[in-house]
Amino acid sequence: MTYPPPAGRLRKAPESFLDAEGIRTAWSEAKAGRRGFMRRSFAAALAGAGAAPLARAQSNPVPPEGGDPHILNLPTHSTALGQPVVTDGYGKPSRFERNVQRRQSPGLTQTAQASVSFAPLQSMFGIITPSGLHFERHHQGWWDIDPSKHRLMVNGSEPGLLKQDMVFTMDELMRLPSVSRFHFIECGANTGMEWGNVAVPTVQYTHGMLSCSEFTGVPLKLVLDLCGANYKKGRFVLAEGADGSSMTRTIPMELIENGEVLLAYGQNGEMLRPENGYPLRLVVPGVQGVSWIKYLRRIEVGDKPYGSKDEAIHYIDLMPDGLHRQYASIQEVKSVVTTPSGGQVLLDQGYYSISGLAWTGRGKIRQVDVTVDGGRNWKRARLQTPVLDKCLTRFTLDWVWDGKPALIQSRATDDTGHVQVTYEAARKVRGRRSIYHNNAIQTWLVSESGEVRNVQIS
Amino acid sequence: MTYPPPAGRLRKAPESFLDAEGIRTAWSEAKAGRRGFMRRSFAAALAGAGAAPLARAQSNPVPPEGGDPHILNLPTHSTALGQPVVTDGYGKPSRFERNVQRRQSPGLTQTAQASVSFAPLQSMFGIITPSGLHFERHHQGWWDIDPSKHRLMVNGSEPGLLKQDMVFTMDELMRLPSVSRFHFIECGANTGMEWGNVAVPTVQYTHGMLSCSEFTGVPLKLVLDLCGANYKKGRFVLAEGADGSSMTRTIPMELIENGEVLLAYGQNGEMLRPENGYPLRLVVPGVQGVSWIKYLRRIEVGDKPYGSKDEAIHYIDLMPDGLHRQYASIQEVKSVVTTPSGGQVLLDQGYYSISGLAWTGRGKIRQVDVTVDGGRNWKRARLQTPVLDKCLTRFTLDWVWDGKPALIQSRATDDTGHVQVTYEAARKVRGRRSIYHNNAIQTWLVSESGEVRNVQIS
Repeated sequence: MTYPPPAGRLRKAPESFLDAEGIRTAWSEAKAGRRGFMRRSFAAALAGAGAAPLARAQSNPVPPEGGDPHILNLPTHSTALGQPVVTDGYGKPSRFERNVQRRQSPGLTQTAQASVSFAPLQSMFGIITPSGLHFERHHQGWWDIDPSKHRLMVNGSEPGLLKQDMVFTMDELMRLPSVSRFHFIECGANTGMEWGNVAVPTVQYTHGMLSCSEFTGVPLKLVLDLCGANYKKGRFVLAEGADGSSMTRTIPMELIENGEVLLAYGQNGEMLRPENGYPLRLVVPGVQGVSWIKYLRRIEVGDKPYGSKDEAIHYIDLMPDGLHRQYASIQEVKSVVTTPSGGQVLLDQGYYSISGLAWTGRGKIRQVDVTVDGGRNWKRARLQTPVLDKCLTRFTLDWVWDGKPALIQSRATDDTGHVQVTYEAARKVRGRRSIYHNNAIQTWLVSESGEVRNVQIS
Repeated sequence: MTYPPPAGRLRKAPESFLDAEGIRTAWSEAKAGRRGFMRRSFAAALAGAGAAPLARAQSNPVPPEGGDPHILNLPTHSTALGQPVVTDGYGKPSRFERNVQRRQSPGLTQTAQASVSFAPLQSMFGIITPSGLHFERHHQGWWDIDPSKHRLMVNGSEPGLLKQDMVFTMDELMRLPSVSRFHFIECGANTGMEWGNVAVPTVQYTHGMLSCSEFTGVPLKLVLDLCGANYKKGRFVLAEGADGSSMTRTIPMELIENGEVLLAYGQNGEMLRPENGYPLRLVVPGVQGVSWIKYLRRIEVGDKPYGSKDEAIHYIDLMPDGLHRQYASIQEVKSVVTTPSGGQVLLDQGYYSISGLAWTGRGKIRQVDVTVDGGRNWKRARLQTPVLDKCLTRFTLDWVWDGKPALIQSRATDDTGHVQVTYEAARKVRGRRSIYHNNAIQTWLVSESGEVRNVQIS
């Protein structure tokens, strides 16, 4: 195995893993240096994986140092009768996974009703977010609304925009033809602290306002058709939520006309969860989460953008000249390495599978490149299939850590040709006072001690 | 809209839904006949959707008869402060979804430790099964095994099959390169009661030993490579579980060599659930669930099938001549309509979206045809994308019910050309005394009263 490749050159994407011979070599070389490294280093990675690393390490103890973990004993569960089926009809994670939780960032917000919880990206696999770990962002707290009492009103802002205003019950909406599609949702404020170089310690807090689900619902276009919408004049829609914040956002009609925007009631095979808008949420693929109106109660067709409170003074980009940029709602191409990531510790040299997530609001991910030397050399990562439209894509890359400091970054490119930017490039245009719409390249520093930290190198 | 099409002819798959005009017409014609039908008929469908229909109807009450459901009032949740984020770090479904549960079939098994719970297919959307609703099949109860104490041993049945026997900790396995893939899992006994024409009442009990997840793990091939397997001689693998039943199954090496069989620890983005084999389960795409060994503790490479207890006397097909057929483990092409399905009630005529699931252990679903007249006329259903290998595929078809008795069936074809069989054809070969491997076409009878029942028409 030769590594790194010549400076600046991209290798062809590997078609298979580092082969067994290569893994065995990396493994035994490292073992020769220090016994049991695989076990201990992964345990450390696991420990670092939780947002409460120490607690996680305690709940996943490794055999005591010196003990041989490869001795097989016949445990209780091999000889006795276990638990019965359907202990409560709806299953829960293992007690050993208690530390895999969504978490609030202490001090980030003043009240827990207008706050955020972050998904534990460092402990997650593949692309699906279990609904119990889906990030939360509430503007006035969540509600568990009785679906039999919920209504969706569809109206025009003035005569002539709809042939007929209508009010739908949930029963009526759920009788209409539906589609199911996999999409990511990212809060526009994800990675927001990083503009000011506040190096938030873990990927849960840097990038955890990101989730991905299979959503099921009725194309909004179909309901607008039922109401006889005038698409020539009605070029915008206002979506309004039923919770206390009465969140309202403008959606341009061109996003709706292609059938992508959904009146969604299903998420990952079941009804939406209460904290994610049960019983009805707007799904606006590729657009920041605040536009995915929860507890959706009203759709109004209009002829211009609404400039509502939540789009005039929130989710806007403060530019270096003091002006602000409005309606920047497409989530641009972005990626992040989730393993190894901030707070994790690599206890020894040897083989690691670098793994992360890439996404773009403009279409599909075309490629992800990964560097372990701060951008001098890049290697093409493997993309898990299927690579879907406006959906998370998992990438992986084989890596043998030589024990020296490493700067790990990932850089995604989407199928429109957009490439994820550096902080240097982003700040030239956007300055340092923004909160929203940060898709810059994330850097994790692996120090000689194996500790992984969030750093900015530009 | 003209319906039905000429007898026996298949229509081209519709590229879009029944258009808004068609839906509006079907809707208003039915409304003219009986006011409020949409609301009440869907409520009934919801009521029938639960395995405990009445309870579900009570938890989802519709406005009292005569009240206008389309009046908007400002509810409490629009004016007050809601619940805070992260009330417990791991979210739960709405209290209004309490009746969407996996359920045991009363009397099917003698103890709850060697039993089954069925997934509520009639209440589910898309293709992902939420892990809390994943079906269960235990042979001696489930365990929540401490992953730090779990081991996987890999050995050969005799010298020369492996260069080196190895024992892996979970930490070591999770350090190896992984893949994530979407696959269905179906118990070989799914739809088993139907061989004897026991018309189980709901789709939860006829087809609910079926689930679908994104699984993450290490290709077994990679671990066998690490151990230096002799693939010329070692053509079979025995997989053994660590729970009290010590379940063992033979897996042919040709299923493993292509990299499809996984040592899986992840399911739908998080660790496997305890009742589904935490911390390690074999994933054998396309093959019946019993081979997906849970609590996987040992892989042995051998040169012939093992004929273990669980393959010699269980999960075999009793043929009409009294002999039995062994090692029939690929789940053949199959489909079922989940809405409308047994136990549901259509309260009035009008538009319905027929929806169901199709799958095959041999590859991808190529097409699904649906009939509402017991097979005289078939229409091509829409397939939700992506259509994935050895994965559930959701299909839908527009239908306007005219109030007359209807016999609803779906018939799937896979990309190898296999077509789902009728009961008549299946019984000619297999008789009526089997339990396992039933992929025959399911029939739901909609009677004039709108009640939907499980019937066999051959």
